[in-house]
Amino acid sequence: MSFRSLFFFVLFCTLAHRGLADDGYRLWLKYDQVRDAGQRKAYQKQANFIAVPSGSPVLQAAGRELQNGLQGLLGQSVPMVGEGKGSKGGIVLSVAANPELGQEGYRVSTQGGNVVVMGATDKGVLYGAFALLRHLQTGQSISAVNLNSKPRIEYRFLNHWDNPNGTVERGYAGSSIWKWQELPEVIDPRYQDYARANASIGINGVVFNNVNASARFLTAEYLQKVAALANVMRPYGIRVYMSVLWAAPKVIGGLQTSDPLDPQVRRWWTAKTDEIYKVIPDFGGFLVKANSEGEPGPQDYGRNHADGANMLAEALGQHDGIVIWRAFVYKANSNGDRFKEAFQEFQPLDGKFAKKVLVQVKNGPIDFQAREPFHPLFGAMPKTPLVLEVQLTQEYLGFATHLVYLAPLIKECLEADTYAKGPGSTVAKVVDGTIDNHAISGIAGVANIGSDRNWTGHPVSQANWYSYGRLAWDHTLTSQALAEEWTKMTLTQEPKAVSTITDLLTKSRDIYVRYTTPLGLHHIMGQSIHYGPEPWLEKSARPDWTSIYYHKADAVGLGFNRTATGSNALGLYAPQVQKQWGDPATCPPNYLLWFHHVPWTQTLSTGQTLWNELTTRYYTGADSVLWMQQQWAQVQPALDAELHADVASRLRIQYREALWWRDACVLYFQQYAKQPLPPTLTPPSRPLAEIKQLVDIYQLR
Amino acid sequence: MSFRSLFFFVLFCTLAHRGLADDGYRLWLKYDQVRDAGQRKAYQKQANFIAVPSGSPVLQAAGRELQNGLQGLLGQSVPMVGEGKGSKGGIVLSVAANPELGQEGYRVSTQGGNVVVMGATDKGVLYGAFALLRHLQTGQSISAVNLNSKPRIEYRFLNHWDNPNGTVERGYAGSSIWKWQELPEVIDPRYQDYARANASIGINGVVFNNVNASARFLTAEYLQKVAALANVMRPYGIRVYMSVLWAAPKVIGGLQTSDPLDPQVRRWWTAKTDEIYKVIPDFGGFLVKANSEGEPGPQDYGRNHADGANMLAEALGQHDGIVIWRAFVYKANSNGDRFKEAFQEFQPLDGKFAKKVLVQVKNGPIDFQAREPFHPLFGAMPKTPLVLEVQLTQEYLGFATHLVYLAPLIKECLEADTYAKGPGSTVAKVVDGTIDNHAISGIAGVANIGSDRNWTGHPVSQANWYSYGRLAWDHTLTSQALAEEWTKMTLTQEPKAVSTITDLLTKSRDIYVRYTTPLGLHHIMGQSIHYGPEPWLEKSARPDWTSIYYHKADAVGLGFNRTATGSNALGLYAPQVQKQWGDPATCPPNYLLWFHHVPWTQTLSTGQTLWNELTTRYYTGADSVLWMQQQWAQVQPALDAELHADVASRLRIQYREALWWRDACVLYFQQYAKQPLPPTLTPPSRPLAEIKQLVDIYQLR
Repeated sequence: MSFRSLFFFVLFCTLAHRGLADDGYRLWLKYDQVRDAGQRKAYQKQANFIAVPSGSPVLQAAGRELQNGLQGLLGQSVPMVGEGKGSKGGIVLSVAANPELGQEGYRVSTQGGNVVVMGATDKGVLYGAFALLRHLQTGQSISAVNLNSKPRIEYRFLNHWDNPNGTVERGYAGSSIWKWQELPEVIDPRYQDYARANASIGINGVVFNNVNASARFLTAEYLQKVAALANVMRPYGIRVYMSVLWAAPKVIGGLQTSDPLDPQVRRWWTAKTDEIYKVIPDFGGFLVKANSEGEPGPQDYGRNHADGANMLAEALGQHDGIVIWRAFVYKANSNGDRFKEAFQEFQPLDGKFAKKVLVQVKNGPIDFQAREPFHPLFGAMPKTPLVLEVQLTQEYLGFATHLVYLAPLIKECLEADTYAKGPGSTVAKVVDGTIDNHAISGIAGVANIGSDRNWTGHPVSQANWYSYGRLAWDHTLTSQALAEEWTKMTLTQEPKAVSTITDLLTKSRDIYVRYTTPLGLHHIMGQSIHYGPEPWLEKSARPDWTSIYYHKADAVGLGFNRTATGSNALGLYAPQVQKQWGDPATCPPNYLLWFHHVPWTQTLSTGQTLWNELTTRYYTGADSVLWMQQQWAQVQPALDAELHADVASRLRIQYREALWWRDACVLYFQQYAKQPLPPTLTPPSRPLAEIKQLVDIYQLR
Repeated sequence: MSFRSLFFFVLFCTLAHRGLADDGYRLWLKYDQVRDAGQRKAYQKQANFIAVPSGSPVLQAAGRELQNGLQGLLGQSVPMVGEGKGSKGGIVLSVAANPELGQEGYRVSTQGGNVVVMGATDKGVLYGAFALLRHLQTGQSISAVNLNSKPRIEYRFLNHWDNPNGTVERGYAGSSIWKWQELPEVIDPRYQDYARANASIGINGVVFNNVNASARFLTAEYLQKVAALANVMRPYGIRVYMSVLWAAPKVIGGLQTSDPLDPQVRRWWTAKTDEIYKVIPDFGGFLVKANSEGEPGPQDYGRNHADGANMLAEALGQHDGIVIWRAFVYKANSNGDRFKEAFQEFQPLDGKFAKKVLVQVKNGPIDFQAREPFHPLFGAMPKTPLVLEVQLTQEYLGFATHLVYLAPLIKECLEADTYAKGPGSTVAKVVDGTIDNHAISGIAGVANIGSDRNWTGHPVSQANWYSYGRLAWDHTLTSQALAEEWTKMTLTQEPKAVSTITDLLTKSRDIYVRYTTPLGLHHIMGQSIHYGPEPWLEKSARPDWTSIYYHKADAVGLGFNRTATGSNALGLYAPQVQKQWGDPATCPPNYLLWFHHVPWTQTLSTGQTLWNELTTRYYTGADSVLWMQQQWAQVQPALDAELHADVASRLRIQYREALWWRDACVLYFQQYAKQPLPPTLTPPSRPLAEIKQLVDIYQLR
């Protein structure tokens, strides 16, 4: 064996023996060698060195990432040099005052034979470095590189719903990646990879702990742990925030009350905040879920949400921190329409919140359903900066077994027109602060990250983390462009496969809606675990935790009348919205049953009766999963075998579960519609009782 | 750059870029290249081929493992051939009738120029293949290899306490590796690596689900999932068993009762068992926790444990399966001594169990404490095969932050003399069936495995999984030999480092006992979570869930009087044991407070007063963790850097927590002893109240 052939043989063995199938751990930061030799050569020519000026750990992180990334992409070691003055053919990081770039923007361009990554701050350079890497990872030309970007939203959060015992509320990718018991001593190398991934998509704030918060995190013991994580996040431009338990002054402070107007309580929070800033000097602030789903809050003392939020803002004092107060609330014993409750509690408080307070509003009025109309608070609180909260973990969207690309869902909300200041007053413009001239703006994604090797359980769910971050940075990016970008970085660059996968991703959310909750159905899923269908759920601890509360199927028809003749939740929207959605004929079919109780026999704008349209959607939705399987089978040659097989097997589950949804809902609603299926559809082969049994199994302890 | 230097450079880059620090995933099956060139050459000479006769998937798995292992160890690809007749210099797998080897034994020896791995069955060959690999991994000569072994215990189980929702009861290494929701479609590659690891140490039976069982597993839906896992286990000689919920006939069978004497119930179990064998033809049988800690059982219907177990044995009928019935029971409202309860319930049933039933008994009478006297049932039920249950997950032994090697604990129990048939009637001989001539024998380890990349959280906890399996196979192996074996396969072969680590491991459990529960203290840990010290715990849902129930500290002294003047639990043992343990002067100090209430001022056999001995042990125990840190620091050059750093950081936590235990217990007991510390010991710098606060933090939601 020649030395040359030995070389490739040993390289092969090394890779093969180590089991280097793509296990998904590297996310979209794969940095696999560029396959096109010509392009690799062109990149190599421009990568003789990386000049990193002395500066903060953030700059060093940018340099390290470039070095690591280029080593992978180019298969060559690129030296880091201090300044690189006079040299050509390298990459130069540069911090220079530039008002156009803002605090976090960057410009990557060719200057004097070098690629210059410029930012007005170290963070800007960091984001520029990742943008350059993305540029190369997606196979674009380096010769006339010209990237200019700055974020449209200032605070770009990930919210983890992770508990101190290691479980993740609504997490479907294993346990929490935060090992509280082992902190602060054990620093899992994974923490840094998490920070890198977030920085690469522009996320700059993280909340490690569940909004159903434990008071543990406010103790000196746990602050040391949080501080250890903050140390890992800092070089990646990420600040740490904390979910707080409202009752903390009682639970750990030894006080008799947590009344926000009580002077002792106020002093306690001020002292606690000062203590936090001593161990985490760049601490970001507090996230609060109060008086919601059993959590304590200021209303326990006859105070309102503004009293609570403003007290925390006062505690932050001169520190550079903010308060994010969640608007996801509904009364303990509701007999009204849950759709309206957050609005009714929060809209009257507009203008009452202190300067450092942002109110965090879910994209829709109920709870992260597969499709919701935009939340009526958007546009209705002009004096308050509103943070848009979207859910990346697929609580209602198929856990880790359904391929559902969420960018279209997020975009649908962002592009919805509130008409608050006339046409074009999109949710995006409310959130980014441009409509109401807010100085601060924010967006939050509930993380889909867990301890699974590939972070998100379903490999394609990585695309939801990715596209959320990119949209948080620039909400004008399209779902399709982001799907394509992610696919090229993560799965393959083979053009046909890229286009097939992009198409599959982009259509996946509509397909999911079709086989689970078409035409505006919502909240008819399995009790508590939110898995599988359960439209027959009639009793629960609260009426608004049942399914019949929402679908209101009866002999006449289906859907929740939220017009003026019903709950009039529709009245919370601007007149233009009311006008369009208030008439079943003009209401988009996707929102129809959100607002109207429609007779089974009514002909819809689609030309079919409600019953026929509904059942057809269930069937075509389930059939579309077969189409997804076929599309995925086609890209097999272009993908890593292990990763391809993983997704393929999940698509098989998805089809099994799509049939479960289809059969459950069609058979259940048929009891009310009392009509046969349209002749083109083959009736389910199993009785409803059998499906109910299946649902019961998954709800056993 | 020459091609040769390019070769090493690229190899280095490949390894470095891929982040191939040792993350612990490969366990003891690392198969890293043999460093000693001479030895590698000697091995290579004997590895020209692997002859694998056609046969079952088990034989194929043996061949694949050898091929994979040799490729790593030797850095060369070894071809697999069908028979290899006439060829020399290879490895030949051979199945040949040989009564001496039994069903699972093997012989590995040199014959006709080949290394022959022989077994009377395919499974014997599989175990022989792993023995050969172990032989090479630990650097032993291949020229005159001669390995002969067969298991002393027939059923060698791992019991997982994993729940269908992915949590692990008392698991400290992430979530469950079993992804029930994704099964049967998604087969995580990890499942096969789990099977390989178990086969390599001789484990031949696994129970995937918690003994606090969900009825889900008995449904057709879940049987498909279990069957999918069984398919992965089968080629590795592993049979699948199942924990069952006693109330299943009611919960999922639609019956009104689960009375084991009810004909309908009996028919239900028989039909269910037949159904299981249809989908898992080699199903192993049932594991039952009944009438214990709130679980349902035959006593709900006035029947006893034998009635329940025998009914299941009957349901197994002609199938090759067994029933394992757990003896870990204590009454719902106890006012007696919990120590005695399992004995009182089970000993009278000796001789009443059907042939296929084994009774599974924990190593000690309470619950997996850091040190317990052997369970009095051992030796007291000669007509019943008893399965020894030990706990590998460190529920009471420091979770994933304390380095505690458990082989000495297991050995201490195995070597304890029950005197059941005169001196030498060790627990080992009771369990392996030799004393009472049982046809079947078993041992079970409660798994310490979770979704953490390194499987066990603390890297050294892998040694507990490893040594348990090896002891289950051959309980005469020593703790030290197994520590050395594991270290060589897993961490390093550098002789000084091997000896340092072996010494550290072997001493670690005694050190843990010293700083937590010296002199026979037990059950004084943090409430519910079993983390940290809480000797002051006075109230709980049950008296025997408090700490004061066990330590009985008062003005006079400390310890639980279990002699004839007390609860007389000691009376459950053989007279010889009673004699030794019944006298404080002859009772081993390690068991002293298990059986005696000893005055603080009493001079012990150690020559010190109880108070001085107790406090000295707490202090020397904590100090020994510093010694452990020093030892670990010394081996740094011989170990992978990331793995070394991980353990080093955990040792820092261990010291912090050792001080926590020391200070808590010394200060708490001092309130009763009312004496100063011996002058050589520096009193804790923090007050007891501060430590109590710390304990409270970890018990917050």
